[in-house]
Amino acid sequence: MTVASIGARCRLPGWESLKRSAEEAAALIENGMTVGMSGFTRAGEAKAVPLALAERARHDPLSITLMTGASLGNDLDKQLTEAHVLSRRMPFQVDATLRRAINSGEVMFIDQHLSETVELLRNHQLKDMDVAVVEAAAITEEGGIVPTTSVGNSASYAILAKQVIIELNLSAPAELEGLHDIYIPQMRPNRTPIPVVAPDSRIGTPYIPIDPSRIAAIVVTDGRDSPSTVLPPDVDTQRIADHLMAFFAAEVEAGRLSRSLLPLQAGIGTMANAVMTGLANGPFEHLTMYSEVLQDSTFDLFDAGKLDYASGCSITLSEARGEAVWRNLDKYRDRLILRPQELSNHPGIVRRLGVIAVNTALEADIYGNVNSTHVCGTRMMNGIGGSGDFARNAQLAVFITKSLAKGGDVSSLVPFVSHVDHTEHDVDILVTEHGLADLRGLAPRERAPLIIENCADPAYRPALHRYFEAACRRGGHTPHCLEQALGWHQAMERDGHMRTLRDDG
Amino acid sequence: MTVASIGARCRLPGWESLKRSAEEAAALIENGMTVGMSGFTRAGEAKAVPLALAERARHDPLSITLMTGASLGNDLDKQLTEAHVLSRRMPFQVDATLRRAINSGEVMFIDQHLSETVELLRNHQLKDMDVAVVEAAAITEEGGIVPTTSVGNSASYAILAKQVIIELNLSAPAELEGLHDIYIPQMRPNRTPIPVVAPDSRIGTPYIPIDPSRIAAIVVTDGRDSPSTVLPPDVDTQRIADHLMAFFAAEVEAGRLSRSLLPLQAGIGTMANAVMTGLANGPFEHLTMYSEVLQDSTFDLFDAGKLDYASGCSITLSEARGEAVWRNLDKYRDRLILRPQELSNHPGIVRRLGVIAVNTALEADIYGNVNSTHVCGTRMMNGIGGSGDFARNAQLAVFITKSLAKGGDVSSLVPFVSHVDHTEHDVDILVTEHGLADLRGLAPRERAPLIIENCADPAYRPALHRYFEAACRRGGHTPHCLEQALGWHQAMERDGHMRTLRDDG
Ligand SMILES: CC(C)(COP(=O)(O)OP(=O)(O)OC[C@H]1O[C@@H](n2cnc3c(N)ncnc32)[C@H](O)[C@@H]1OP(=O)(O)O)[C@@H](O)C(=O)NCCC(=O)NCCS
Ligand SMILES: CC(C)(COP(=O)(O)OP(=O)(O)OC[C@H]1O[C@@H](n2cnc3c(N)ncnc32)[C@H](O)[C@@H]1OP(=O)(O)O)[C@@H](O)C(=O)NCCC(=O)NCCS
Repeated sequence: MTVASIGARCRLPGWESLKRSAEEAAALIENGMTVGMSGFTRAGEAKAVPLALAERARHDPLSITLMTGASLGNDLDKQLTEAHVLSRRMPFQVDATLRRAINSGEVMFIDQHLSETVELLRNHQLKDMDVAVVEAAAITEEGGIVPTTSVGNSASYAILAKQVIIELNLSAPAELEGLHDIYIPQMRPNRTPIPVVAPDSRIGTPYIPIDPSRIAAIVVTDGRDSPSTVLPPDVDTQRIADHLMAFFAAEVEAGRLSRSLLPLQAGIGTMANAVMTGLANGPFEHLTMYSEVLQDSTFDLFDAGKLDYASGCSITLSEARGEAVWRNLDKYRDRLILRPQELSNHPGIVRRLGVIAVNTALEADIYGNVNSTHVCGTRMMNGIGGSGDFARNAQLAVFITKSLAKGGDVSSLVPFVSHVDHTEHDVDILVTEHGLADLRGLAPRERAPLIIENCADPAYRPALHRYFEAACRRGGHTPHCLEQALGWHQAMERDGHMRTLRDDG
Repeated sequence: MTVASIGARCRLPGWESLKRSAEEAAALIENGMTVGMSGFTRAGEAKAVPLALAERARHDPLSITLMTGASLGNDLDKQLTEAHVLSRRMPFQVDATLRRAINSGEVMFIDQHLSETVELLRNHQLKDMDVAVVEAAAITEEGGIVPTTSVGNSASYAILAKQVIIELNLSAPAELEGLHDIYIPQMRPNRTPIPVVAPDSRIGTPYIPIDPSRIAAIVVTDGRDSPSTVLPPDVDTQRIADHLMAFFAAEVEAGRLSRSLLPLQAGIGTMANAVMTGLANGPFEHLTMYSEVLQDSTFDLFDAGKLDYASGCSITLSEARGEAVWRNLDKYRDRLILRPQELSNHPGIVRRLGVIAVNTALEADIYGNVNSTHVCGTRMMNGIGGSGDFARNAQLAVFITKSLAKGGDVSSLVPFVSHVDHTEHDVDILVTEHGLADLRGLAPRERAPLIIENCADPAYRPALHRYFEAACRRGGHTPHCLEQALGWHQAMERDGHMRTLRDDG
């Protein structure tokens, strides 16, 4: 990483008078405030001020509403939760400690479509924001904020908050400047079309334009993003990727897609990353991405010469990939853009471009409804994230999941999902390691046998077939046996597993 | 109604050679074909050819896939079902006979977001269309089709089908010409923004442009649309309207809405119509509508001087209103536009305009999930229609329902909806005759007490509170007692009512 001189990074005249320690800046945050912070999938979060806030709360208790782009790195959600700073949290998280606090009812978590949070804020449908804390790679002559590895919701937070704290991170590569494209939709009812017509459309400014009089503090930092926790593909994720590659190839063959497919979106995590990596070895070329988080796979595809352009709202890389990418950013800069998540996930743009969306399900049911968030219908895992923004409006909405979880104790294909995030209307393709179900144009009674045969683990197929057949005897457009519908989850709650439903169980 | 001479209606040179009887035209439809027909909420459907098709099928059996805009009038779905013509049907219907055939598994029904059907067709994700049958008020010199009282999916069907049958309806008011605005989004990935920026944006042509060589038959007809079945407001729907008016007024007071509100969408049926009519007596002015079907209430609002402009994809009126409107169309013409349903319901446009969407729920649960379609989770009522297109992207997504159905035997507020069409993420405001729950920015545990106290019928409140409290003792972000979650619906299936759950039951 380049450590540039502070002067080159912070070009706002007189900025020194705003320089504060993290503790001094954190003191601007008062009990009961609504605070917006940068950070999306562990990338580009403000690092020093939240930590100082957690420290302070240990002797001087306070609690706030915390809004971010998505998840924070550097265990910040953990620290803030342990210090009881969070009374409300939105719109997404992935931290185990915070998750426990959410599920115990200690923290009120508002699980939102990631494109919608700032729209609600702008329209005063959420409480006005008191303070925004945003990580910057540079501050321009006019006080414009150049974000670091994520844009997330930082732009709107910085524009809408009463006071702005900037964490100027000297260890962020100076070459990040120029990568971002900041555009804020106009206020309704006089909004003109957002002019993004392709992943490489640049429509805004490379910095967040704010009135510098609202900058309340500048904190100089040098912390690093946490590396991503994505694991290498295993046999099952590789099979999922293979099924999907074969499907894409068949779509090209049938003339429904070109060899460049359509702009690709891939969800968070190991599975989605593996699928994208799979494209490196496929017959596809001149691919583009219009996605949310850009993971290692994006750079695998660049290096394989398969990917022409990638648009996202954050970059989250493994330790090794991070080293290579951040040191050679110039190699990729012309083919990368980071936008506000309101734009990376915008329903209208996703629909316009005809994105192919690949997201991971916790579980799916025999009719194609998908649960992305609630284990056994009650316990929040992470949140819906951008999956709804993309799946509803995509040309192809793909959901992937392993057919089994917890070492075979749990079937991820069930009669009736215990929580619905994506309805049957929004799920085109379902893939597990066993195969792929193409649900387009099918009625529920046609979907069920296909999902059971192609996607479920063989040990759970007979019980699923028996359920479906019994349900059909009762009738209905979407047949169910209500008294058994949640039985698989009840078994899980009662016995800790669904093995009694297995044919070999 | 003006009955113009055929020559003025049909200006395509040499059209007489294409003139056919309904029976002759129906003969173009062969067993196994995919057929698209005009018609949206009982307005503007092709009338003669479907009837001739049903007649023919009685002695010469055939079955087809039938796609429409939405529901058909003149009992056509009934006739086609009774003649066993329908093997597949999409994307919406409201007919009791067809509903039974769907629920018995005889007809495969594909319940779709109404904005999406032609997008799927255009991208060959549904089987290519063989024949389109479209009702016209006129045919232009170049063979362009001027639709009648609905546009629905007629434009894309006529453009994409191999053969087009036009029903030229001489009883349709000639003044309909000029009302329509036909625009078809470009093919992906090179689609430019759809330039609608307000309800009154005119962006296309007043007719459906097609290559006249694909016109296979012109059938001259004079049938009428069925009148709408909307009932006058009763005490409960009036209360629902009153709660919503008070809420809008409070939003204006708080500065979150102007006195013109935002473009309004109202779902089908009696309740949504009553709410719109309620606006006639409120303190609001210069209202606009960006909706799907325009009902009596639209014209009530015009007549009250409250409504400046209304955009929709069909006009469905009661007998009396229809007489008055169609005879005086000139009075309203400058303030009306009919678009393809792909545009009236377009997620990107709904998001751009910040529509206020008011749709009716069958049932809602204590966390704000909404079921619009499946009685007891299994039996299809009508379909999701445009409710998802609007609710997901609206600035305010309102769902209304009476707290009770079936004379108090059923509570429409339940612990766990038996089917999800709209997730908690997409429901801002829930209203029943008892009150309104403002769910914006609330976590599930905060939503439940509000929904129970403000919306549920008092007799069912104690049981709902008990459920919620027991569930909270078990924990989770969205607490549930899985073994009881569907118990209310099981009671309904078993006993025919939920009265055992009533406190006075
Ligand atoms: C669904 C989601 C949790 C899957 O995550 P993942 O890391 O790819 O998948 P994993 O298989 O490792 O599953 C994660 C956890 O869920 C558990 N799990 C998976 N399926 C399960 C099921 N059917 N029932 C219970 N638990 C299940 C796993 O055991 C694992 O638990 P652990 O952390 O205790 O080991 C994740 O993709 C997510 O949060 N999605 C919603 C947001 C989203 O889609 N964003 C995309 C837009 S960018
Ligand atoms: C939900 C919907 C069916 C309500 O229709 P409505 O005519 O306004 O309301 P009603 O109260 O008359 O209910 C219709 C029927 O559902 C029944 N019903 C209502 N709530 C019920 C419940 N909780 N459980 C079982 N049945 C219920 C009613 O008893 C009535 O039955 P009936 O026809 O046998 O008398 C209708 O609005 C719909 O189809 N919505 C989905 C599509 C949509 O929202 N489109 C809007 C975009 S334009």
